[in-house]
Amino acid sequence: MRKNCLVAQSGGPTAVINSSLYGVISEFLLAQPSGKVYGGLYGIEGIIKDKVIDLSCHSEEALKELRNMPSSALGSCRYKLPSIEVKSSDYEKLIEIFNKYEIGYFFYIGGNDSMDAVSKINDYVKKIGLDVKVIGIPKTIDNDLINTDHTPGFASTAKYLCNIALELWFDINCYDKESIMIMEVMGRDTGWIAGSTGILKELVPGINQLIYLPETAFEKERFIKEVKESLKKNSKLLIVTSEGLKGSNGEYINVEDNCYEVDSFGHKQLGGVGKYLQDIIKEYVTKNVKLQEAGVVQRCAMHCSSKTDLNEAEMVGRYGVISALKGKSGFMVAIERNSNNNEEYKSVAGLVEVSEVCNKVKYVPLDWIDKENSNVTEKMRDYIRPLILGNEVALSEDGLLKYKNTHRFRVES
Amino acid sequence: MRKNCLVAQSGGPTAVINSSLYGVISEFLLAQPSGKVYGGLYGIEGIIKDKVIDLSCHSEEALKELRNMPSSALGSCRYKLPSIEVKSSDYEKLIEIFNKYEIGYFFYIGGNDSMDAVSKINDYVKKIGLDVKVIGIPKTIDNDLINTDHTPGFASTAKYLCNIALELWFDINCYDKESIMIMEVMGRDTGWIAGSTGILKELVPGINQLIYLPETAFEKERFIKEVKESLKKNSKLLIVTSEGLKGSNGEYINVEDNCYEVDSFGHKQLGGVGKYLQDIIKEYVTKNVKLQEAGVVQRCAMHCSSKTDLNEAEMVGRYGVISALKGKSGFMVAIERNSNNNEEYKSVAGLVEVSEVCNKVKYVPLDWIDKENSNVTEKMRDYIRPLILGNEVALSEDGLLKYKNTHRFRVES
Repeated sequence: MRKNCLVAQSGGPTAVINSSLYGVISEFLLAQPSGKVYGGLYGIEGIIKDKVIDLSCHSEEALKELRNMPSSALGSCRYKLPSIEVKSSDYEKLIEIFNKYEIGYFFYIGGNDSMDAVSKINDYVKKIGLDVKVIGIPKTIDNDLINTDHTPGFASTAKYLCNIALELWFDINCYDKESIMIMEVMGRDTGWIAGSTGILKELVPGINQLIYLPETAFEKERFIKEVKESLKKNSKLLIVTSEGLKGSNGEYINVEDNCYEVDSFGHKQLGGVGKYLQDIIKEYVTKNVKLQEAGVVQRCAMHCSSKTDLNEAEMVGRYGVISALKGKSGFMVAIERNSNNNEEYKSVAGLVEVSEVCNKVKYVPLDWIDKENSNVTEKMRDYIRPLILGNEVALSEDGLLKYKNTHRFRVES
Repeated sequence: MRKNCLVAQSGGPTAVINSSLYGVISEFLLAQPSGKVYGGLYGIEGIIKDKVIDLSCHSEEALKELRNMPSSALGSCRYKLPSIEVKSSDYEKLIEIFNKYEIGYFFYIGGNDSMDAVSKINDYVKKIGLDVKVIGIPKTIDNDLINTDHTPGFASTAKYLCNIALELWFDINCYDKESIMIMEVMGRDTGWIAGSTGILKELVPGINQLIYLPETAFEKERFIKEVKESLKKNSKLLIVTSEGLKGSNGEYINVEDNCYEVDSFGHKQLGGVGKYLQDIIKEYVTKNVKLQEAGVVQRCAMHCSSKTDLNEAEMVGRYGVISALKGKSGFMVAIERNSNNNEEYKSVAGLVEVSEVCNKVKYVPLDWIDKENSNVTEKMRDYIRPLILGNEVALSEDGLLKYKNTHRFRVES
């Protein structure tokens, strides 16, 4: 009887992906005390190289520190598992590992590609008749998985960005002249992250803000007009843009409009969307325009994480274990919002077929974007508001995030 | 008898410059209840245009909100007051304003250029025999004013950057491959801000970090060698660089080495130092190198501010008022560190001749930089450690910074 479990993390890390990891480990050790929890290092890519460690030896206290630790404690990978027809050796290797460690349950924490891997592995073990339950635990700051209200990681990114956007708004208001700040945030295909900053309107009712999302086609002439008109209302303007804006032909605008830069060694490089919007404004509107690329920090800003997000990340990890132990396999854990706008926010975990989730993208609904395609509507704000509630992670009295073991797991491999 | 005071802010805003403003207003209203406090909007530039508002009407409670509000609530300017010989009209206009509002005390909160203005205005009022006390209140995240242990604003920037640098360190550790993160921080002439991140060594003893400061000449070949050697020790590497690195001839390296980019409209633009270092690493070492430009957020990150910094910012404001009311003029308030490393940190305010401070730059002492010129020594860490102590500003339960009046003062003009 296979009674052990294997858990691994994949894709870009988030502030709360380790909270899901903690949920999986803690729940499994609780529900199946005779079983062991193994961690696969560096996702599927590491597992097939037998980079597997025993996590059962850690105290609950030591494990709990994971809950507030950003980035993937087990390491991650950007490996798209090929189909069985293309590379059967990956599957054979995986089964070897499952057999070696007597794995009966496999939990993979990740985004779209990871759910694709979960689906493929589930199909494979079923096909060969191996009794391994395979469950996907959702994670992505992009919030683009379907059949779940939202994904763990997204809310903490949104919360950090809303707070720094507010600070940037204060900053550009300090000079007695036109002043534009562009903040470029993640989101190549969807505008969830950019759209989340629409919540600023509740903090600063008179804020002058434009938000651009990949869901609607970007038009340069219209953009110039909108910026000029916004400046007439208020000489300070905050523009939030997704990194992946597309033109009417579906191409990324920085590709389409040839927004290339030549680096110090003469190599041509694709410039960012924020930089491109800044160039357009400098050329056609005003030189007083700054750019803040929110960068990698937005996906690991634990110091500004959402308690609701941390809780839900742990919840989906625990629910995955509970479901697998009940015999479920081939599912992703989803989050269901169980409250209306006027009620206290509640959410519960549920299961959705992983094969229906993977390789699909959840876009921002078009009626959550305003008529001008340059801001979000109340529906987006109602959606975001409860997700960023609550603060859990505090800086120490020394002023810094502190961990007893900043290398938890990886150095032990 | 001139019994009113005028206060204004100048230069780049910081997270705590409004705490100094609060200190000035609160102390003056306390000590001179019959006097009024006027605020000059947008610094000297606004004052000479008579952009002056009465601040005395606000409740202590309303004023106290300033303490935790980032950016300059009175607005700021980047105006270098010309000498009297060059533009006497500025001085005449100022005196007109002083007379109109019966100003007996003028407090100017700012950095080097502001202290130069304080010195010039003090000389002028003395020369014409006008009884106005003129005091400079220090403010600059750059920490480059002499004759003060440090400047308000610096510690909060350092604290934010140390925390996000830690988060970035976690982030780059998640993949099973070489991974370099470059974080570019402010500091065109001095490396105080970059150097402050040396404190990370105390959080992560084994951290692989290189820090480059403008105080020592940057050599490309040496840099490439250092990066390669660092990667041999640990495949993850965090590089923190000041935005203003200089070569052995004293020129900025991105100018010297022709690090220009061509924007979307064919204009040649100076690239940043971080981008240049990234280009060098991509060319000579590895493609796995990311760049985080800390950007404007680093000077207004109230959500990560230091309580010690907020306290000291208020302290220098109050001390300026106390000194002026005692008849002092032509001074800058300085911070004196009154404790050794093993004792509880204490600081007091004092006065230094503003004419000795302005137009000078405090560099990081060379023995605070290591022999290889690519990190800081224990002396820098001892210096930084107490400055970032304590947390005061908390996000609301909604997850956001909240202010009753996000426009405090400026819209009222």
